[in-house]
Amino acid sequence: MSLLVVGSVALDSVRTPFGEVEEVLGGSATYFSTVASYFCQVQVVAVVGDDFPHEHLEFLRSRDIHLEGLSAVRGKTFRWRGEYGYDLNEAHTLETRLNVFETFEPVLPESYRKATYVFLANIDPELQSRVLDQVISPTMVACDTMNFWIAGKYDALRATLKRVDLLVINEAEARELAREPNIIRACRIVLTWGPKIVIVKRGEYGAIMVTVESIFSIPGYPLETIADPTGAGDCFAGGLMGYLANVNDWSEPALRQGIIFGSAMASFNVERFSLEGLRKLTYEQILERYEAFRRLVHFESVPSLG
Amino acid sequence: MSLLVVGSVALDSVRTPFGEVEEVLGGSATYFSTVASYFCQVQVVAVVGDDFPHEHLEFLRSRDIHLEGLSAVRGKTFRWRGEYGYDLNEAHTLETRLNVFETFEPVLPESYRKATYVFLANIDPELQSRVLDQVISPTMVACDTMNFWIAGKYDALRATLKRVDLLVINEAEARELAREPNIIRACRIVLTWGPKIVIVKRGEYGAIMVTVESIFSIPGYPLETIADPTGAGDCFAGGLMGYLANVNDWSEPALRQGIIFGSAMASFNVERFSLEGLRKLTYEQILERYEAFRRLVHFESVPSLG
Repeated sequence: MSLLVVGSVALDSVRTPFGEVEEVLGGSATYFSTVASYFCQVQVVAVVGDDFPHEHLEFLRSRDIHLEGLSAVRGKTFRWRGEYGYDLNEAHTLETRLNVFETFEPVLPESYRKATYVFLANIDPELQSRVLDQVISPTMVACDTMNFWIAGKYDALRATLKRVDLLVINEAEARELAREPNIIRACRIVLTWGPKIVIVKRGEYGAIMVTVESIFSIPGYPLETIADPTGAGDCFAGGLMGYLANVNDWSEPALRQGIIFGSAMASFNVERFSLEGLRKLTYEQILERYEAFRRLVHFESVPSLG
Repeated sequence: MSLLVVGSVALDSVRTPFGEVEEVLGGSATYFSTVASYFCQVQVVAVVGDDFPHEHLEFLRSRDIHLEGLSAVRGKTFRWRGEYGYDLNEAHTLETRLNVFETFEPVLPESYRKATYVFLANIDPELQSRVLDQVISPTMVACDTMNFWIAGKYDALRATLKRVDLLVINEAEARELAREPNIIRACRIVLTWGPKIVIVKRGEYGAIMVTVESIFSIPGYPLETIADPTGAGDCFAGGLMGYLANVNDWSEPALRQGIIFGSAMASFNVERFSLEGLRKLTYEQILERYEAFRRLVHFESVPSLG
């Protein structure tokens, strides 16, 4: 199945306790599509400026990612500068320059309008809705959001959520969105607004999925080396949605498997800066990490007590 | 097998966003032994003052907990006052009155000296060592500790750790102890100091066990109602050690099962204030929560990708 993503393509400058990079490839649509390309055909809707390095386009094309919906316009590419302390769960944004993203109006190429799986990465919820308007009959729609839109475009965000099957969101932002400190209760509130599934990203602590019927929770993959957490959430979503599109199934068992693939892909990403951890993965590596998750959480069924 | 615990028996005053209690039953040895009593015979080494309410002794006796090593001395019982904000992972201590605990010198009754499983709850590491001196030939020794001892009695703590098989410790304190921000690396450092196993308690995010050979990680049990997190760590240790003593096995599979029992017991505890969540549990409830953990983390083995 085809998977469409709308989001940012950016040049990131990142400092962590383990190193520093300047103007490297980044952006939510970039991380998402690169990861998803290991599972299915991906169509990107985004914008770059005329300063966007050609080598980055070549890399995305080398992953067979469809770039017909990637507009290249006059001006500068979106730039983000951030840093992380030893608490790698939280990014500190130092500078955001929207540049060409400021006037971005997504227009879907005709070939994208039949997309079956759709991911609305963390952008203005009004843009998210306008992308959805152009998709003819999606099988499944997921979105992400952040505190900036929760605070500044709450009504538009609620309108988008009405049209979404799955919300993928950071833990602190789930609490803020639902105005409820308990994360399970926060998810249950959001489940009354449209989404049938809420998946909360907890950084190194893993992820939790809440539906009306059940809860699934998984720890993070334990890593001794975390170079740069940038893009981890988008990699998680890319592995999840890429897998669902691959199997064309978003039943609960498939969602659980997708969360493992998402967690595995995010773990590869954070081991290196920018997209370096994602460029040359093999399926053996991906499947090995999936199996490592099974060993990580395995315990025997309930014993009889002596 | 017999399980010995040395720790505090206290009167706690606790405020959380969900309520407030004054001078209720608390203390590490109290939580630990109450939980462990569901699994095995427990021997308590602790001290109370002459103001300790008789009804609390009656409760502990009703759980078949051995109190021969509980000294009742002239003076006031240890008191702790603390509060929690909406971030229930962190207690803010408002007042600690050691009282009779200040001059506590644990002397093991003869019947305790053959204990096979030993838990040294979070007390002065010099006292932990002096308790160990009195146990003849333990099968397995575990201990807890905290930032106060890491900062103030580091050498004594390192000396205790040399004699311990298992360290059970909070996440922030594991980082502080090993002076290493990455939690897996922090555990690997501690594994070179004596313990063969390090289990890190992560509050609502669950627990992680690191040995030289493997890593086990489990999320917290998802709860919509958390009234009071006091004692959760001691309940976790009580369920874990109680189970290991019950089956007289501390192989890795048993440890993994014990961690699930510990997590289950901690989850019952935090649903109510003081020990109210632990007084009248049935084995059916405990085993049902163990099984709920299996459903919580279950996902199918690796699929073939289309």
